[in-house]
Amino acid sequence: MTILVTGGCGFVGINVAEELVARGERIVLFDRKPLPASALRDLGGATSRVCVVNGDIGDVELLRSLCNEHRIDRIVHAAAITADARREARDPGSILAVNVQGTVSILEAARAARCSKFVFVGSGAAYGKTHDAGLLLDEASSPSSPQDLYAISKFAAERTAQRLGALWEIRVVCVRLGSVCGPWEFATGVRDLLYPQLQVAQLAVRGEQAVIPAREVWRDWIYSRDVATAIAMLATAGEAGIPMYHLSSGIDWKGSFVDWCRILADHFPRFRWRIAAGDEPTNVSFVLEHDRAPMDITRIVEGIGFKPRFDPTCAYRDYIGWIDRHRDFMAQ
Amino acid sequence: MTILVTGGCGFVGINVAEELVARGERIVLFDRKPLPASALRDLGGATSRVCVVNGDIGDVELLRSLCNEHRIDRIVHAAAITADARREARDPGSILAVNVQGTVSILEAARAARCSKFVFVGSGAAYGKTHDAGLLLDEASSPSSPQDLYAISKFAAERTAQRLGALWEIRVVCVRLGSVCGPWEFATGVRDLLYPQLQVAQLAVRGEQAVIPAREVWRDWIYSRDVATAIAMLATAGEAGIPMYHLSSGIDWKGSFVDWCRILADHFPRFRWRIAAGDEPTNVSFVLEHDRAPMDITRIVEGIGFKPRFDPTCAYRDYIGWIDRHRDFMAQ
Repeated sequence: MTILVTGGCGFVGINVAEELVARGERIVLFDRKPLPASALRDLGGATSRVCVVNGDIGDVELLRSLCNEHRIDRIVHAAAITADARREARDPGSILAVNVQGTVSILEAARAARCSKFVFVGSGAAYGKTHDAGLLLDEASSPSSPQDLYAISKFAAERTAQRLGALWEIRVVCVRLGSVCGPWEFATGVRDLLYPQLQVAQLAVRGEQAVIPAREVWRDWIYSRDVATAIAMLATAGEAGIPMYHLSSGIDWKGSFVDWCRILADHFPRFRWRIAAGDEPTNVSFVLEHDRAPMDITRIVEGIGFKPRFDPTCAYRDYIGWIDRHRDFMAQ
Repeated sequence: MTILVTGGCGFVGINVAEELVARGERIVLFDRKPLPASALRDLGGATSRVCVVNGDIGDVELLRSLCNEHRIDRIVHAAAITADARREARDPGSILAVNVQGTVSILEAARAARCSKFVFVGSGAAYGKTHDAGLLLDEASSPSSPQDLYAISKFAAERTAQRLGALWEIRVVCVRLGSVCGPWEFATGVRDLLYPQLQVAQLAVRGEQAVIPAREVWRDWIYSRDVATAIAMLATAGEAGIPMYHLSSGIDWKGSFVDWCRILADHFPRFRWRIAAGDEPTNVSFVLEHDRAPMDITRIVEGIGFKPRFDPTCAYRDYIGWIDRHRDFMAQ
């Protein structure tokens, strides 16, 4: 079977691509930008099973002919603009066009190609400001309350995918991701907010100093390799009937960020880091200022047999190895 | 002050227009279709204060120049596609484009024109399938769970308006309407579902027979004149700070539908109606099959001093008088 990954040359997309190729699948990566050279190199041994198509997610005709030509059977839809407040204020229309209308476009192509499965990559941001890290979010009962345009558009797209799946008889399954860190995170041009693990790694690679916030914000971290595993399982499995799964690690990463700084300092001797004192300005940010409640992952664990492999220690050990092998990519 | 009403030639829009004109305001009605002749006639005495502009809600340039030319100070944004499932399956892109992207367009025009207030006309449909008529929905705590594309797009637009209002410093206030019945409901071309009061009135005017469902579905009815009063109050008031109000009657209309049938039968001697027996097919539908929980209106009553004037008896008495004076419109 051939699987189309939209946003396939972006952070989550490349991880999914590598996982699918490792499983022997043929893939088509659709993206507005080319695949980074180092990702192409990593996928090199399997280039006969990898095709990259560049285009706009709003271009229904292109998507239709692509699905037809490559006999696309399944789709992972990860294309999105991950906007910060500046982009929201400057160009809200594009965020909604790409994230919402783009989802309709790719669903129209999926329908025309009679795809048997559509995996929508959504976000835990749909829950809004959950604050209370003591709360455990539940797919069936926790209310969605998206606040910014990224969250609003991802929630609208998720619900649109579910609705059109029902009307058009496409098996749609949605995942809401936790905060993803790990290989292939980079400033794609539509990813405005980079996570602190990458921010500090970039400083480390450049041999600069990191001043990190005194308070570590609680977020529901998951390593990008685990995200890819679960999405590949969903894309290739025959299961149906569950409209939405949480996809996070189910592990409390609190306190692990300083471990990451230490690991980086061991690897990059010129790198220095310290915790900001008092009101001292930082050059690393947790992106969100407030804690985010964790998402219960029982549904995906029991439903498809997904088991996260990476706790913070494993994740950071793997990530530092990846960074070592991708110095060129990190230096960009 | 001059107030722009988008969707101003549609059901809610015309009611708002009449109310604003009665209050002495100048208005510009923006719509894809012309104002119905009978509405133009009703507004006739005040034509110097009424202007109709036809165009597409996605046409930001037109909206900008319109706001500039007419020195628009405030906006009531009621333009939307009220889609049924057939339209959703046939043309989902247009529903989202008009309802979501259209909201961004008009907000962009509002920003450029430095409008002092923006009233977004949303829908209680954002709550989704609430079922339990014993529940009382609350603005602050009831979860939104939109299911169909109309609800999904109206919810996304509401949140987008709130977000851009905050980023662009426009005072945005949103209302979620109950189910609106009364004068000026008609098949506008973007209103796929007509409410049972109109369905049965059309049969009455034509002297045909109505077979109504044995079970009256609970909906949170409000008379269109009350909707217009509250929206006009919000559009003209100086208040701020509340992001969203329910706008419904706060009255239980259960059982009143047969009264409406009786009133119509008194007025239209050729009209016959009866309750469907057993599995007998009906030619009137409540649109929704399930009950919808009522919305608490304490916030708007206490917040702006809105007091619904129409209980079912008053509403139907007023509506039958309006129908009498608009036989030509009803016969279309």
